[in-house]
Amino acid sequence: MESCKVVENIYLLVIITLISVLQNVFFAQKVERECKNRNMSTSAFERVSCANRNCMDAYPTFLAVMWCAGVCLSQAPAAFAGIIYLLVRQKYFIGYLGQSSQSTPGYLFGKRIISFLSLMCVVGVFNYLLWRYYGSDYKEYVETITNAASTLLLLP
Amino acid sequence: MESCKVVENIYLLVIITLISVLQNVFFAQKVERECKNRNMSTSAFERVSCANRNCMDAYPTFLAVMWCAGVCLSQAPAAFAGIIYLLVRQKYFIGYLGQSSQSTPGYLFGKRIISFLSLMCVVGVFNYLLWRYYGSDYKEYVETITNAASTLLLLP
Amino acid sequence: MESCKVVENIYLLVIITLISVLQNVFFAQKVERECKNRNMSTSAFERVSCANRNCMDAYPTFLAVMWCAGVCLSQAPAAFAGIIYLLVRQKYFIGYLGQSSQSTPGYLFGKRIISFLSLMCVVGVFNYLLWRYYGSDYKEYVETITNAASTLLLLP
Repeated sequence: MESCKVVENIYLLVIITLISVLQNVFFAQKVERECKNRNMSTSAFERVSCANRNCMDAYPTFLAVMWCAGVCLSQAPAAFAGIIYLLVRQKYFIGYLGQSSQSTPGYLFGKRIISFLSLMCVVGVFNYLLWRYYGSDYKEYVETITNAASTLLLLP
Repeated sequence: MESCKVVENIYLLVIITLISVLQNVFFAQKVERECKNRNMSTSAFERVSCANRNCMDAYPTFLAVMWCAGVCLSQAPAAFAGIIYLLVRQKYFIGYLGQSSQSTPGYLFGKRIISFLSLMCVVGVFNYLLWRYYGSDYKEYVETITNAASTLLLLP
Repeated sequence: MESCKVVENIYLLVIITLISVLQNVFFAQKVERECKNRNMSTSAFERVSCANRNCMDAYPTFLAVMWCAGVCLSQAPAAFAGIIYLLVRQKYFIGYLGQSSQSTPGYLFGKRIISFLSLMCVVGVFNYLLWRYYGSDYKEYVETITNAASTLLLLP
């Protein structure tokens, strides 16, 4: 019972984390496969390795922001933003492999989603401070607005 | 008192995290040492640097899955799987250094442990959903089964 | 209300995490910019990329230790140590860029802060075990000592 209450507030985040782990394993297996055919083509190995590294470099940042946003404010929009991020990452990874080496995509991706999640954290902390010093709790309004705003992430 | 209750459910996970941090520092110091002797042998530096990088790439994934599994289901088997993972990682790192450059071990390691921990997360979330929609709590049975299953990780 | 209580114990940690995410984005944008001017000077790109990679390698370790220390013992000194770590990291990154390639700074940085945070985790777990087996709670004394000790991190 006790621990079910804990799970209640984070289960969507746990599901997204699991999906992201599956995706990490998918990326790593791509690297593994290219690693074994390394003598065939160095450039393909370099490209998949670089794509994987860029994704892995950004991964702790993404996890930290998503969990903070989910715990501080509301888990549903945070998990939704997480799914969008994973889709963007998948597209980035695939796009990286297909590109010719001259025109690689940049190092950064998913900036908009990270910004949105950071904003959620800021709002959550701010809301807590308001509650602490003024006793007013705007959490419900804020959650409604956040839910609505998270759909804006679907815009291309 | 309040915060002691929080610690109660995670103290094993905290201990494993601390051990993994110690291991990270051990790896990093190996890299640091080779970095200073870099003029002596480039291949040794490349190998230790690559081994460290592969371990570090997988580290956030491991931490995320272990904590999710520990919080959602039960901390003892999650911490046990964590110890096994750290042993596998140590063996992988040492093995990487000793190998000749022709036959490096693969990029991935500890797949079985990551799968076990992911399965624990899935079971934890599933158990929560069962509790929420049907009111039935199989947590005790599940924990017993998980404890038993975690010993299977000891198989080579 | 319920969730405000959760936020109460972690809001300082969330703020530090947000600042560290901003710093990560700053580092990544430096890499991005050098990546586009890559044809101009390879050595500058190599240096900024290496500095970024070293910072990113240590990032999950830092996050894990800071959160464990903050949750297990006390958030204020953990967050204070986190700020110092971010300053050290900034100095390391800037220093890395300015160095000539012969005398790069080492791979490790912020060892003292990571040690301090690890020690906080150990004390927190130890305090919990004391409370569990002997019923004595020294948390207040420990917190006072930790607060005092964290100022020692300001020493150069």
